Amino acid sequence: MSERVQIVEVGPRDGLQARKEPIATAARIGLVEHLRRAGAGRIEVGSFVSPKAVPRMADTAEVMAATGSRQRDGDMVLVANERGLDQAIEHGARSVAVFTAASDAFAEKNIGCTVAESLDRFRPLIEKAKDSGLFVRGYVSTITDCPYAGRIAPAPVADVSRALKEMGCGEISLGETLGKATPARIAAVVEAVAEHVPLAELAAHFHDTYGMGIANVAEALRLGIRTVDAAAGGLGGCPFAPGAAGNVATEDVLYLLQGDGYECDIAMEPLLDAVAFIEREMGIRPTSRVYKALRGGAC
Amino acid sequence: MSERVQIVEVGPRDGLQARKEPIATAARIGLVEHLRRAGAGRIEVGSFVSPKAVPRMADTAEVMAATGSRQRDGDMVLVANERGLDQAIEHGARSVAVFTAASDAFAEKNIGCTVAESLDRFRPLIEKAKDSGLFVRGYVSTITDCPYAGRIAPAPVADVSRALKEMGCGEISLGETLGKATPARIAAVVEAVAEHVPLAELAAHFHDTYGMGIANVAEALRLGIRTVDAAAGGLGGCPFAPGAAGNVATEDVLYLLQGDGYECDIAMEPLLDAVAFIEREMGIRPTSRVYKALRGGAC
Repeated sequence: MSERVQIVEVGPRDGLQARKEPIATAARIGLVEHLRRAGAGRIEVGSFVSPKAVPRMADTAEVMAATGSRQRDGDMVLVANERGLDQAIEHGARSVAVFTAASDAFAEKNIGCTVAESLDRFRPLIEKAKDSGLFVRGYVSTITDCPYAGRIAPAPVADVSRALKEMGCGEISLGETLGKATPARIAAVVEAVAEHVPLAELAAHFHDTYGMGIANVAEALRLGIRTVDAAAGGLGGCPFAPGAAGNVATEDVLYLLQGDGYECDIAMEPLLDAVAFIEREMGIRPTSRVYKALRGGAC
Repeated sequence: MSERVQIVEVGPRDGLQARKEPIATAARIGLVEHLRRAGAGRIEVGSFVSPKAVPRMADTAEVMAATGSRQRDGDMVLVANERGLDQAIEHGARSVAVFTAASDAFAEKNIGCTVAESLDRFRPLIEKAKDSGLFVRGYVSTITDCPYAGRIAPAPVADVSRALKEMGCGEISLGETLGKATPARIAAVVEAVAEHVPLAELAAHFHDTYGMGIANVAEALRLGIRTVDAAAGGLGGCPFAPGAAGNVATEDVLYLLQGDGYECDIAMEPLLDAVAFIEREMGIRPTSRVYKALRGGAC
């Protein structure tokens, strides 16, 4: 039980990208700095995508420069195409992520092409990234439910995960975008994917819409996954998934890990300082029970 | 997986007993009626205890009469002594519950005696209840953590559970009063108790202070427990456990059960009507994510 679990802190990118209100670059920098102080070894700091489509991430190069991303293997940025990859390389990224889905309908809304087309687009991209010495993560969203296509079977999730691995992704993040699934369905899809991708290369990426996030994380751990995506304060929500809540809160995941005896590089008190920073400096209401219980904050 | 799980709806008693503001008897009756319409086969409708100590439950006889408790094996009332038991019998209760703890410090604050003294007090009480044909549940609170004594080991929980079973309790409800535990500690205590009390006679009674409630319920189900206490809207909190949040919300538990393929006698839509009634007619803010996701209500 004293195994190590890695949290990938996705708050600065996944957690903030869809916010309607502008966010000061200084606040994004401050958040990353708080997360570093808390010990977060892997942080998704931003993305190099169309600033028109995702204006909140337009300052990613500045955030990277100000927070020393160039020196950090654990820092990751999302890219959608070769132009974005070139920017990531130019600004010294050592890890990049690409994003697709298990549902064509979701992929079309979110990235403007089918899943198969997204894979065709990513193939040369991943090759170039690998040639440049980068680590590449692949996001597979809508692993159990799609807001447009309804229930998603495990097979297409396994197929796209395998394809991403074969193209060179060193890690596949399995995204339960809507937060609708319960542990039994998480188990079914993880088991299907694990036939093609080793558990050590999978990450659990869950949302908390129906309050199942932590139970699903516990199930993923039970199945052997040792990498968990989370966002401080429960930041998040997706413009293409109406009604979906934020990511599971990093502090709730950390509480689970500490209680169940796992080791993790993040410490609770400075992490709660990061959440307090989100509440105070960014004006965003944290949604986690742990923050409320330990700091009396929102929820 | 299509096994049946029983929810014991504890909102009308455990969920409301500690509220500072008065609650109209009509509202307590309305809540029980809503829960019946939702299909809840087991409801803790109130208690016969000192009206000075617990004024919110002083109308329990009226609630029982108005909602037809006399005809329902599944209705339960809490009693603390022989006087309360006599009242319960007089008003036609078919099931009663007694309440103790695994921690002397908590028992002293809550019921004014040590755990051993509470068992001595309950022995003749349970005998009389059984002689009168009643079903008796035993509550064991603070199964992992006590607000006064800190961490509680599994052994004393197993001891008091076994004692209650030997005295004639047909069911032991294991109460994680503070909502602090994570699944590994729930597993340790359930396994210790299950050496003395069959899993079929155990109930999981969890609170959601640190957001672990549903993960702990999932763990209890995985271990084989098939009875879960919950309160509609996440009602609850305990005056002797400062900062502790309410019970796990019935609608969140039901969502988990339905998602994982268990059968349950409660239906979601009329249950959410009960939660809406709590919000609207009782002025109490529901805390569940499922209510928020499905009805856009508080949280």
